[in-house]
Amino acid sequence: MLIPFEKLKSEFKRVLLSLNFNAEDAELSATIFAENSRDGVYTHGLNRFPAFVQYVKDALIVPNTKPSRTGGFDAIEQWDGHLGVGTLNATFCMHRAINLAHEYSIGCVAIKNTNHWMRGGTYGWQAAEAGMIGICFTNTIANMPPWGGIDPRLGNNPLVIGIPRKGGHIVLDMAISQYSFGKLNLYKSRNEQLPLPGGYDKDGNLTTDPGEIIDSVRPLPIGFWKGSGLSLVLDLLAAVLSQGRSTGDVTKGGSESGVSQVFICVKPDNGPQTDAIIKNILDYTKSSRIEGEGKEILYPGENTLRIRKKSMEEGVWVDDEIWKKVQQL
Amino acid sequence: MLIPFEKLKSEFKRVLLSLNFNAEDAELSATIFAENSRDGVYTHGLNRFPAFVQYVKDALIVPNTKPSRTGGFDAIEQWDGHLGVGTLNATFCMHRAINLAHEYSIGCVAIKNTNHWMRGGTYGWQAAEAGMIGICFTNTIANMPPWGGIDPRLGNNPLVIGIPRKGGHIVLDMAISQYSFGKLNLYKSRNEQLPLPGGYDKDGNLTTDPGEIIDSVRPLPIGFWKGSGLSLVLDLLAAVLSQGRSTGDVTKGGSESGVSQVFICVKPDNGPQTDAIIKNILDYTKSSRIEGEGKEILYPGENTLRIRKKSMEEGVWVDDEIWKKVQQL
Repeated sequence: MLIPFEKLKSEFKRVLLSLNFNAEDAELSATIFAENSRDGVYTHGLNRFPAFVQYVKDALIVPNTKPSRTGGFDAIEQWDGHLGVGTLNATFCMHRAINLAHEYSIGCVAIKNTNHWMRGGTYGWQAAEAGMIGICFTNTIANMPPWGGIDPRLGNNPLVIGIPRKGGHIVLDMAISQYSFGKLNLYKSRNEQLPLPGGYDKDGNLTTDPGEIIDSVRPLPIGFWKGSGLSLVLDLLAAVLSQGRSTGDVTKGGSESGVSQVFICVKPDNGPQTDAIIKNILDYTKSSRIEGEGKEILYPGENTLRIRKKSMEEGVWVDDEIWKKVQQL
Repeated sequence: MLIPFEKLKSEFKRVLLSLNFNAEDAELSATIFAENSRDGVYTHGLNRFPAFVQYVKDALIVPNTKPSRTGGFDAIEQWDGHLGVGTLNATFCMHRAINLAHEYSIGCVAIKNTNHWMRGGTYGWQAAEAGMIGICFTNTIANMPPWGGIDPRLGNNPLVIGIPRKGGHIVLDMAISQYSFGKLNLYKSRNEQLPLPGGYDKDGNLTTDPGEIIDSVRPLPIGFWKGSGLSLVLDLLAAVLSQGRSTGDVTKGGSESGVSQVFICVKPDNGPQTDAIIKNILDYTKSSRIEGEGKEILYPGENTLRIRKKSMEEGVWVDDEIWKKVQQL
């Protein structure tokens, strides 16, 4: 069903206040969850909210904490997130990185002991709204085998790159696995095959069958060995720069809590020449012939804006059952 | 056949001096070409040298030029490469980024009007040797369709991330296409199928046949739509930050000259705690069971060190015909 954005947000806020979130944190946290659903990232909006609430109840996420500075010099800062709310910590860090980029033209903030940031794109949009190029990534619990191996040892470690643009920011938000387990479960529940191979079956053959991949726990990294290397390197960067937990540490902890994240901001020249460069690149990319009927060439973030517009006009799509569940929280 | 590293290097240097390279530039340029073959990246070592020489003769690469500063503030610098030698310009830029990271803890150098940097990993190793995390990327000529399209509009825009490590740096060096055209041609010449799907045939079906992909000019980006977005975003960053040419501009120019590149350095805490974090991550990754006989789990750069060692002990492998050709230049 469709729900007005404000109604969705106020419902989240009501629940968060009941969990003793202070008013300011409840407002921002509720806004981010509602915006994630509004922008079509349902897996990290309403659908994730009940699990988030459970994490708070289990004290894996600690409300009303503030990050504290642990180190860094000049254009780099290191922070400890004290297992606070991931969305709030991440917003704080990107805000710090924006300030550093104002001061030094580029800035980097690394945080340890933080929690799941839900939709990574949130912070790419945040940077772009501030006129900054934003690059951020997080490590996660192990959910993907390294190339050549069969046991999950790598996280899907989402990588986000936001570029400010008049008329709609460009925001790439991609996990390093080809399909998330959320997507695999969605396809499985619909009895559908994946459009492209997404992992291995138990015999080690590439497959488009979501159930086979869920059973083997062998989803594919993007680009096979390349994504395996990229995931490893992002974990190294996150853990080294924050001096925090790695994917292995988080996994051994048993639940996805206390992750490490990095936020980099770069101040571009936001003048007319930059506008022209961006327009030129997007026009050129879209000048390719289309693959076939119903296909189109989109820049990262383009579809987000469409869904956002539709959600604000017609209401935000919610899963009826989950919506009912949240109303009863 | 196998050639001593020094012999390979001095042969390159001889040719470069004959092209009126100054002694210092000839030495460094020859060293980089020889090191690329030494490290097993034959496509960007000896094999590429004749094409490089032709570019110099065609004045697409202009020797004995130096980059000049065009802009930037504090921890960001912009440079114009004046169509100089790509390897020398890139070495210069990473050196500048290292200096900026010494001063500000993080630094970013963007360069326009430069040329092919050959093996991107060269500059990841350079940063890591200086104790810095190095991140760099370049745009290229269009050689890959955007997701949903069929005409090449994206470059394979290699991305490099180097992380310093005692006992062997970690250096990820990956183009955003699944297989390079060099690799496709290699498989085709051996009448071999690719180990995994690398693109589309003329009917739009995924294929492991290298000849079909060469004919369709539809190689796959890593991770399908994800690599398509990543390639686009890297081109945007390179062109916006350097205020230089985009993949589209380079392609319209007809030859891969005058590209844009970005070099970012971050100063990590290189203490014992960082060593422990890195060891912990690599050990955990390698603790997965192996997929099968003959498989192994490697970190990015691990195999490079093995080949380097072998090359220095037994000689650098060269293609007999190309070696003969270079000796006659």
